[in-house]
Amino acid sequence: LALYSKILINGQPSYEISITDRGLQYGDGLFETIAICGGKAVLYKLHLKRLEVGCRRLAVPVPRREVLDKEVINLCRGISRGVLKIIVTRGSGGRGYRPPSQPQSTRILSIHPWPDYPSVFAEQGVALRICCTPLGHNPSLAGIKHLNRLEQVLARSEWNDPMIPEGLMLDSQEQAIAGTMSNLFIAQKGSLQTPDLSRCGVAGVMREFILGQASALGVKVAVRSLTLADIKRAEELFVCNSLIGLWPVRYLEETQYPLGSLTQRLRYLIHTQLSLV
Amino acid sequence: LALYSKILINGQPSYEISITDRGLQYGDGLFETIAICGGKAVLYKLHLKRLEVGCRRLAVPVPRREVLDKEVINLCRGISRGVLKIIVTRGSGGRGYRPPSQPQSTRILSIHPWPDYPSVFAEQGVALRICCTPLGHNPSLAGIKHLNRLEQVLARSEWNDPMIPEGLMLDSQEQAIAGTMSNLFIAQKGSLQTPDLSRCGVAGVMREFILGQASALGVKVAVRSLTLADIKRAEELFVCNSLIGLWPVRYLEETQYPLGSLTQRLRYLIHTQLSLV
Repeated sequence: LALYSKILINGQPSYEISITDRGLQYGDGLFETIAICGGKAVLYKLHLKRLEVGCRRLAVPVPRREVLDKEVINLCRGISRGVLKIIVTRGSGGRGYRPPSQPQSTRILSIHPWPDYPSVFAEQGVALRICCTPLGHNPSLAGIKHLNRLEQVLARSEWNDPMIPEGLMLDSQEQAIAGTMSNLFIAQKGSLQTPDLSRCGVAGVMREFILGQASALGVKVAVRSLTLADIKRAEELFVCNSLIGLWPVRYLEETQYPLGSLTQRLRYLIHTQLSLV
Repeated sequence: LALYSKILINGQPSYEISITDRGLQYGDGLFETIAICGGKAVLYKLHLKRLEVGCRRLAVPVPRREVLDKEVINLCRGISRGVLKIIVTRGSGGRGYRPPSQPQSTRILSIHPWPDYPSVFAEQGVALRICCTPLGHNPSLAGIKHLNRLEQVLARSEWNDPMIPEGLMLDSQEQAIAGTMSNLFIAQKGSLQTPDLSRCGVAGVMREFILGQASALGVKVAVRSLTLADIKRAEELFVCNSLIGLWPVRYLEETQYPLGSLTQRLRYLIHTQLSLV
């Protein structure tokens, strides 16, 4: 519990929830993992937007904005560098899988230490493996950051090498979807492409931010199906999430990539704008 | 909390777990729902076997048999009719999705009231709907009763009619897989067929029991792919789980089925052997 210096459950300091909570019983809820920098939640509005979209998709009551804002400000105050995790579950009740007709959501906010990834990952890039655990298709769950994350847990259990900080996940049709904890982009002839996430995968907030930044820079972006072969023959490859910002990918198993110019430009832009490293 | 008259968490009476538990964070665990009859857990050995298979598949430490036995006996004592739920999670720790190298599993045993389904469901049969929420394929998770159950929650949220106690779930290829909380069988010319669950679905303990009973009775059983069309033209259809035993299906939306002889024979056998109704 040393990790949890600060936790609020429905606004009260606590570190336990009832075992009846549907978050535990069925993974019936959503979460956000947010960088804290200089006492503030980075890209907070984009995170809230995704959380709200997820709640609406699952018909989980959306936490009141002003309540959440107040708790986030209080928890993040004085934290120069850290991580805020927000979990929203459907709460307790219902009969078996069937949700209660008037669910009362559970809201868990917790502060965690900043992950200590070597800075060389962001500066020089990383090596990725290709995971064996596939991502199953389910349009009703695709895109949102729900609590059913066993596929990612199994994929991340496949290897132990600390020099390989991420793995690429495919669906059963050899489409490249995402990293276990990140989204991916390829650069090709000065434009960007990122996998379509309408059947599986989590639509990351950093992915959203990069899509916006790229458009603002006049860089073309396509969201489309990308096969493993497309990824392998890409000129540049990078992964991103809210905590790591952007990591250039230098190796995908045997395939090698340069530290490309578009990747570096975007990385510089993200890391300076968001003060992530 | 009125529902929870008796709970043991890692052997201690309690009703709360740490929010760091991976069961909540990622649905990283498994569960069993077991009928209690006359102070005893019904089909306990089959439940334990499935739990153990699930733990091994997810690399979650299997709870020690003698510890579990003792807790189950203590909790079920004096309960003439009830439900025992066992949850085993990977416990706390690890880094993000990555499991800890030495996980300490969390074991949650809880007693719940017997569900009050009308007896007419078992005696005369039920009406089923066809759910829109598909079951995604994932061979690494198929068959086991893990805690990632959002597909079932969404499917069970699709309707509200108390006269329709169950819904049929299909995969994206229109293969019939299971009910939201049950397995299904069709009877055709005196033999049984039940869907293959190697890509999705939960391999229920009652399904396992029925497969065994049918063989003992000399009834042929095939585990195979069944399309929705196969189900619709079946002579008899029934669903089963550990609490309901067997419910004949009389309607699948517009398709009508008789109260068939093989279904009735199996129902009689299950309900008398296991004293479920």
